[in-house]
Amino acid sequence: MRAVRVTGYHQKLEMRDVPVPEVTGPLDVIVKIGGAGVCRTDLHILEGQWAEKSGVRLPYTIGHENAGWVAAVGSAVTNVAEGDTVILHPNITCGLCRACRSGDDVHCANKVFPGIDSDGGYAEFLKTSARSVVKIDDSLEPSDVAALADAGLTAYHAAAKAARRLRPVDRVVVIGAGGLGHIGIQVLAATTAAEIVVVDRNPEAVELAESIGAHHGIVADGSHVEQVLDLTGGHGAEVVVDFVGEGGSTAQGLKMLREAGDYHVVGYGENIDVPTIDVISTEINIIGNLVGSYNDLTELMALAARGLVKLHTVKHALDDFQTALDDLDGGRVRGRAILVP
Amino acid sequence: MRAVRVTGYHQKLEMRDVPVPEVTGPLDVIVKIGGAGVCRTDLHILEGQWAEKSGVRLPYTIGHENAGWVAAVGSAVTNVAEGDTVILHPNITCGLCRACRSGDDVHCANKVFPGIDSDGGYAEFLKTSARSVVKIDDSLEPSDVAALADAGLTAYHAAAKAARRLRPVDRVVVIGAGGLGHIGIQVLAATTAAEIVVVDRNPEAVELAESIGAHHGIVADGSHVEQVLDLTGGHGAEVVVDFVGEGGSTAQGLKMLREAGDYHVVGYGENIDVPTIDVISTEINIIGNLVGSYNDLTELMALAARGLVKLHTVKHALDDFQTALDDLDGGRVRGRAILVP
Amino acid sequence: MRAVRVTGYHQKLEMRDVPVPEVTGPLDVIVKIGGAGVCRTDLHILEGQWAEKSGVRLPYTIGHENAGWVAAVGSAVTNVAEGDTVILHPNITCGLCRACRSGDDVHCANKVFPGIDSDGGYAEFLKTSARSVVKIDDSLEPSDVAALADAGLTAYHAAAKAARRLRPVDRVVVIGAGGLGHIGIQVLAATTAAEIVVVDRNPEAVELAESIGAHHGIVADGSHVEQVLDLTGGHGAEVVVDFVGEGGSTAQGLKMLREAGDYHVVGYGENIDVPTIDVISTEINIIGNLVGSYNDLTELMALAARGLVKLHTVKHALDDFQTALDDLDGGRVRGRAILVP
Amino acid sequence: MRAVRVTGYHQKLEMRDVPVPEVTGPLDVIVKIGGAGVCRTDLHILEGQWAEKSGVRLPYTIGHENAGWVAAVGSAVTNVAEGDTVILHPNITCGLCRACRSGDDVHCANKVFPGIDSDGGYAEFLKTSARSVVKIDDSLEPSDVAALADAGLTAYHAAAKAARRLRPVDRVVVIGAGGLGHIGIQVLAATTAAEIVVVDRNPEAVELAESIGAHHGIVADGSHVEQVLDLTGGHGAEVVVDFVGEGGSTAQGLKMLREAGDYHVVGYGENIDVPTIDVISTEINIIGNLVGSYNDLTELMALAARGLVKLHTVKHALDDFQTALDDLDGGRVRGRAILVP
Repeated sequence: MRAVRVTGYHQKLEMRDVPVPEVTGPLDVIVKIGGAGVCRTDLHILEGQWAEKSGVRLPYTIGHENAGWVAAVGSAVTNVAEGDTVILHPNITCGLCRACRSGDDVHCANKVFPGIDSDGGYAEFLKTSARSVVKIDDSLEPSDVAALADAGLTAYHAAAKAARRLRPVDRVVVIGAGGLGHIGIQVLAATTAAEIVVVDRNPEAVELAESIGAHHGIVADGSHVEQVLDLTGGHGAEVVVDFVGEGGSTAQGLKMLREAGDYHVVGYGENIDVPTIDVISTEINIIGNLVGSYNDLTELMALAARGLVKLHTVKHALDDFQTALDDLDGGRVRGRAILVP
Repeated sequence: MRAVRVTGYHQKLEMRDVPVPEVTGPLDVIVKIGGAGVCRTDLHILEGQWAEKSGVRLPYTIGHENAGWVAAVGSAVTNVAEGDTVILHPNITCGLCRACRSGDDVHCANKVFPGIDSDGGYAEFLKTSARSVVKIDDSLEPSDVAALADAGLTAYHAAAKAARRLRPVDRVVVIGAGGLGHIGIQVLAATTAAEIVVVDRNPEAVELAESIGAHHGIVADGSHVEQVLDLTGGHGAEVVVDFVGEGGSTAQGLKMLREAGDYHVVGYGENIDVPTIDVISTEINIIGNLVGSYNDLTELMALAARGLVKLHTVKHALDDFQTALDDLDGGRVRGRAILVP
Repeated sequence: MRAVRVTGYHQKLEMRDVPVPEVTGPLDVIVKIGGAGVCRTDLHILEGQWAEKSGVRLPYTIGHENAGWVAAVGSAVTNVAEGDTVILHPNITCGLCRACRSGDDVHCANKVFPGIDSDGGYAEFLKTSARSVVKIDDSLEPSDVAALADAGLTAYHAAAKAARRLRPVDRVVVIGAGGLGHIGIQVLAATTAAEIVVVDRNPEAVELAESIGAHHGIVADGSHVEQVLDLTGGHGAEVVVDFVGEGGSTAQGLKMLREAGDYHVVGYGENIDVPTIDVISTEINIIGNLVGSYNDLTELMALAARGLVKLHTVKHALDDFQTALDDLDGGRVRGRAILVP
Repeated sequence: MRAVRVTGYHQKLEMRDVPVPEVTGPLDVIVKIGGAGVCRTDLHILEGQWAEKSGVRLPYTIGHENAGWVAAVGSAVTNVAEGDTVILHPNITCGLCRACRSGDDVHCANKVFPGIDSDGGYAEFLKTSARSVVKIDDSLEPSDVAALADAGLTAYHAAAKAARRLRPVDRVVVIGAGGLGHIGIQVLAATTAAEIVVVDRNPEAVELAESIGAHHGIVADGSHVEQVLDLTGGHGAEVVVDFVGEGGSTAQGLKMLREAGDYHVVGYGENIDVPTIDVISTEINIIGNLVGSYNDLTELMALAARGLVKLHTVKHALDDFQTALDDLDGGRVRGRAILVP
């Protein structure tokens, strides 16, 4: 089959012919790829940023946001069958460690991450595990939802976690209405009655945010912290979800926070540098967010099936992978680019 | 001023002239009534059902669902000022007991209940406490929201408590889409992404429910438990909120429940009679719900101000109180009747 | 190997020679039994009470409270190795359903229950799954802890769940200081600073309870509800954990409960029959409790390894199974009887 | 009466004769001081560190850790009566703002802080509010518990909050076994079954920690992060409670933390400076802790009354206030110094 391979760092991906993966273990699931999301992490992989961290051996197939149809299953697989439409949780987890057994499979002690440390989904088929496949509604097209598998799932996880404390009198500030942020906004709008305030540098992104559920949009022009404080009676918001995490957003996000508020870190890049006295005198919480769990992904798919979360995508044939990556690198993708084999 | 008084049980209410209440304590608030809800409990009071329980001394002014404008405040009142539009929490609470200090003021060890055990709001003015007045948005008319003060608040409390465990893949069954139920449905729709299934004997109520947020409406015709099971893959719903509590609804509600589910009791009348082995083998929870707290009321008012919770009302002049009660007793009120002084 | 078999209902168990179970699936684990608890449920099985519910096909090997040493493992087993000392969670669960993936494996949609619906542990060896074995501290002897696998785990689960809301000012009433209750008391004493009140008909059980952590012991002599109310200033306790569930204990337990309190059902037998008006006017919760999860079992084993939970056992050779059952049936076992192959 | 007054910054406190405070408001409570804790904050006040922040007008009476007996009460006070033994919550709160009404009175929008921004307890009498007095067990001596009112309450609050997620298999690291830390250790030992690891530079403090409930003591000698990792299988602890917050403890504390762990900030001084990628890739939480609520104080007093939390004190006559402050400044106080009028 065709597969797009990392053959070396600081060099281009290459389309190669590789064997179709086969069922060898009892929980194996072979998925015919219907769509594979093109993510900024893919660019970072090629720059070698993940080389040491992942320990992956070259060459391998890239692509960690995948959806498609079940092509074959191992002997012990009971949750899906051949022909089912599925989205793939980005991790393959063991199911036996304490984290897995607490519903927190993202912190699995033995996780594998296809597309990062093993063969991924820029290909016709991919091998994963019964523990990683979520059967989705027939109304959903794999190429439409593939990018929800990782970017969308991260946004869902953070927004859903943030939402647990939000009451109808509360305000939540979303910093960054880009790829992840605009999923987060839809999730907050669907699952809470809190007022949603969105801050972004890009006026178009702010406008989009207002059209999908934000109650207040603020263009980050230097006065945005002040504008948030004005909107909240000078007190700040109960919750801030920061999908940016660089360019000063962490310090700004903390300033937008009310006493006893929660600041959620999702985007990353810079350091959080905060005096301990500020943390204790306002009694705030700084909360990390990684990708969502398998159950989070089923919840996100439920929202998608009911049209409560939508993602703008630009589809490319698998063979045009280089164009897709170039467009992403050049800032020419609105929404998410998807490769369709 | 004019006030509608209970002068004896098993006899009609009487309009009397009584002194306007005055500020005597530091936290007193005098409210000019803008609307007073007419509630089935008022009928029960006249039947003497509350005589012993409340210990109230006759004559007194009836009416426990009140909203209006602040007319005067005591020396220590800081949260409202003369002229503010307010809705009244049904209880006057002490603020000093452990329940009050836990945000759970409904279980105040020293609570007073105007309209039940002291002078209420079928009158031109009512005396309450700074702890009981919630300032509301200028866009809200007291006579439109008065009935949210008790009936609506109970529905909000139950729905909001039920909502805490609801995820987008879950189903919540609402039994009873009448006065309380239709508030509960709007609250669930505004604060969760769970699928809402509504069961009522009245096809019109079911239709109304579907127009305000229910995803599935079921007319209770004897097959309704089975219909809920069908809708939930035979497993039952994660949560059932029972606004009826009589006529067999408790047994039916428990049958509609999934393993590890929550059955919320709001309506009352019959006994819950359930084998302990059923409670443990399915590991279900039976959860009581009383009226909401002061903070619950502020949250409900935030929903009302944004148009997320609406209540159909029929307004009567205070002098026409007897007509309003007769209509309620005769089943001729759609929504809630409100007296306007 | 030797195995004690159910060969028919209403007749005695029989010792038979059966094949040693072998690894056939990738997650299979064969355990050499070190101790198997003799439980009242075993008597009920022989009376046919579980025949229809379990659907088990006779003959089969009884025994659902098991501990021992790993004798062999399947190809995909990573959490234990040959020679490890283990206790067995009573259920074999799928790891793939939503319940399993939420840490709530007790509500697995596909669970198997060895000793109830398949071959159990009154034998030299038993076949279970990697998902069911908890590696335990070397200091623990399988025959000492086997009875914690089911009875103890149920008590742990209920006590730990009850403990989450208990603060140092609260009181928890434990009804029943027998097999399960005395584990529950130890768990409450180890994990909370609430005051523990124990009620039992048997003065010796009350004395034992006081020696293992109860702060107040009450002999159930008809005045026990009143005694609990006296101890709690007339208000009742924040939490009641009822390990009896028959003979009137449910009504008594509810009467001992404070407003907004939690009544935990663990023991079973009679019906809970309570007016809905009592449930809502006091806003109480009635909470079901089944056996604990796999993670609960690891937590209980942590307490056992540190000596915080102890169990009195009477050991019999496997061949003496009939004596053990007769003693149990005749009320002659103090603590739990254990069969040692 | 005698009162120790701040008459200017950078100069010594002075004993003065001032009028005994009198009841003027309905919720006023006059307390005859039985003991007033001498705290490092008192030294900082004299250095002028709080001058701007508190806005206090000089001269005023210092002392914010107070206990004693009720001498007089206002007309609306119902929770205490003349002669009651009480400890004083450090804040006077309004009871009307959303924070107060959520049980979170520490974040009261209108709080007053006697000893910091108004007259405190280095005196014979102090005026506070009904909302600030906790009636304590007759077995407790005011001068023994006074220092629990602020320092102890902060430690209780952090430890109790940290404890909510701790299960018997978890480990909690306490950094700093000094004044606050040794209260925190006792609270953790009383309310959880988690393993407690204590880290302190001072070997004597580590020894003390082990005698009051710590399971492992580690002297902070440069290898302490590694020692914690060794103790936790290389994974780190589920929870770290940092009572130091300076000298590198924040970076060390974060290194001791397991994936998805909670790092509690209590002590303060340095900045937390952490890459966002570390926060998200490990999905940790950084949790601020201020002083405890009124309800927290009642809970701490319940522990103290049962001997589960003890505090070493050195008592001085009120007239010897300068000696007490000099001893504190010179590092010569073991436990807490208390002034007794």
